Amino acid sequence: MSSFLDSRYSALEEYVPGEQPSDGKYIKLNTNESPYPPSPKVVAALNSVEVNKLNLYPDTAVSEMTRRLAELYGVKRENVIVTNGSDEALSFAFMAYARGGVAFPDISYGFYKVYAELYGCDAKIVPLREDFTLDPEDYMNLGRMVVIANPNAPTGLAISPSDVERIAASNPNNVVLIDEAYVDFGGESCVPLTKKYKNLLVVQTFSKYRSLAGARLGFAVGDAALIADLNKLKFSTNPYNINRLSMIAGAAALDDAEYYRANGDRIIAERERTKLELCEMGFECTDSLTNFLLVKPAGIKAEELYIKLKENGVLVRYFAQPRVSDYLRITVGSAEQMDALLAQIRKIVGK
Amino acid sequence: MSSFLDSRYSALEEYVPGEQPSDGKYIKLNTNESPYPPSPKVVAALNSVEVNKLNLYPDTAVSEMTRRLAELYGVKRENVIVTNGSDEALSFAFMAYARGGVAFPDISYGFYKVYAELYGCDAKIVPLREDFTLDPEDYMNLGRMVVIANPNAPTGLAISPSDVERIAASNPNNVVLIDEAYVDFGGESCVPLTKKYKNLLVVQTFSKYRSLAGARLGFAVGDAALIADLNKLKFSTNPYNINRLSMIAGAAALDDAEYYRANGDRIIAERERTKLELCEMGFECTDSLTNFLLVKPAGIKAEELYIKLKENGVLVRYFAQPRVSDYLRITVGSAEQMDALLAQIRKIVGK
Repeated sequence: MSSFLDSRYSALEEYVPGEQPSDGKYIKLNTNESPYPPSPKVVAALNSVEVNKLNLYPDTAVSEMTRRLAELYGVKRENVIVTNGSDEALSFAFMAYARGGVAFPDISYGFYKVYAELYGCDAKIVPLREDFTLDPEDYMNLGRMVVIANPNAPTGLAISPSDVERIAASNPNNVVLIDEAYVDFGGESCVPLTKKYKNLLVVQTFSKYRSLAGARLGFAVGDAALIADLNKLKFSTNPYNINRLSMIAGAAALDDAEYYRANGDRIIAERERTKLELCEMGFECTDSLTNFLLVKPAGIKAEELYIKLKENGVLVRYFAQPRVSDYLRITVGSAEQMDALLAQIRKIVGK
Repeated sequence: MSSFLDSRYSALEEYVPGEQPSDGKYIKLNTNESPYPPSPKVVAALNSVEVNKLNLYPDTAVSEMTRRLAELYGVKRENVIVTNGSDEALSFAFMAYARGGVAFPDISYGFYKVYAELYGCDAKIVPLREDFTLDPEDYMNLGRMVVIANPNAPTGLAISPSDVERIAASNPNNVVLIDEAYVDFGGESCVPLTKKYKNLLVVQTFSKYRSLAGARLGFAVGDAALIADLNKLKFSTNPYNINRLSMIAGAAALDDAEYYRANGDRIIAERERTKLELCEMGFECTDSLTNFLLVKPAGIKAEELYIKLKENGVLVRYFAQPRVSDYLRITVGSAEQMDALLAQIRKIVGK
């Protein structure tokens, strides 16, 4: 840190992403990526014709993706903004709406706390119940922005759209942001509710279900006025936020719903199979509706299992923080990756 | 704008980028892009092997590009940060260093004013001299952040590194940011000075000289402590700021210096040729060291010429703002594009 840095950031602790070792060294089950490559349509779309246009600036309106997303979700174009990963949408939303205060669960996406600090917002950290479920009553009439990952990470658990609706209705003067990064693995989206609640903003990503973590694409859906706010911040920070290749990849991905549905089904099947086998070893798992499992090992400490798995070439996520330090978050990969994980765990715990 | 938006942004006027009409309709000389496609090495690097890895998150350290940039500019890796276009570097820098006040020229990159407003900074707008040259004395001992585009846009004019050095030396407690977006077309870089002045931050882009406006790549070079500041903000907003394909494109571009040098030489030659022909028509041009010309038409108002050129398929940039409303900014394209431009101008002004 330099002596020039604005003092309001001196205590700021930045987000620490999951480890990203160089390609191929590990079976990577630590950052909730899809084990499957992008659709062949994405590969075909990213051809040399497109690469040869890289000397030209991209479309600041991200028109093609916006149009297709609006179509897919049954909203208008002015209800959608495409962002450089969903992190950018979250960052804009905290900047726009959180300065009067924000509330989110104690166990959730670690970045919410960072955004709150970065933008100088008072953060009300609301504990999840003992079993990691979220009590919607905790978010009624808060008079501040509400941010809920649904399904939540790293718990994997979801609340119902009707609970979201009650939260949105009870906080009419503040934005309620629902982060649906993992919704396509079995959750129910609140996008339809954005037509009814002008304060409801839904954020999604292409990084999980749509196999495009490397392209950095996210989006937000909400009332046109909310999207106009986020666009104001986009055009005041980085109007060309999406590069040409990513926007082509994203549009092509939206053309191949069947491919992603098939992959999603395989991931869900592997999740349930892996959960069952872990339970048979005495491990506890939450009822995840995502592409990861939150797992409490038996007969070995979570941190120790994390280290031993890493030594044996399998990378999972360990959180050295209250309430979840007895757990590991394990991304659901392909059948082969899950077989390798389970074999290693059996070897380590001696079952 | 919604009723939820933080009131500090209600008067914020976002940046308005140059028009980006759909491909192919115009000879596009309005946003200072390169007329030449990226290097064949870039096209070769962006192959299906890389596209098939898009399911995985990119490297948050942008290691390969950072390493190569450090090598190229004779600095260490900790002196370089790669950003999502140079706009992101500028945004981080204003956020980090401008809250105690910032100074920049009245005629310069229009985004500086937007960043100052966005982050609530007091902006001292320093008029350029009557002939659009910058008086370094205006920036001595200001006790606030200084931001200078060098060469400047849209004037095309540069100050010497020794003037930058004096400005940096006289403001030891504030960051002096030199925006070198156009430096490769004949300017002299201040990167070497960053070793001597801990408060000097140099920002560059891949959007102009390196034909990658569509990939969104910029970078900053400076003292390791400054780069650590910018990384802190990056990891607190969007750690995966650069997508996989852009970082591969950028690394490949750095592998083909010769290709870009040849293109740069052609652009410089076209700039001088076009300038000469415009002068022969009585137009005035500044002594641009960039890939654009700032042109004062003769016998026709700038705005009228802009409109007529557009009607005839040639897009240039007109700024409806004080001091430059009699001028057009014209990007230097290929010889064919410049021929078409000159032919249209001759037709319009009847010469």
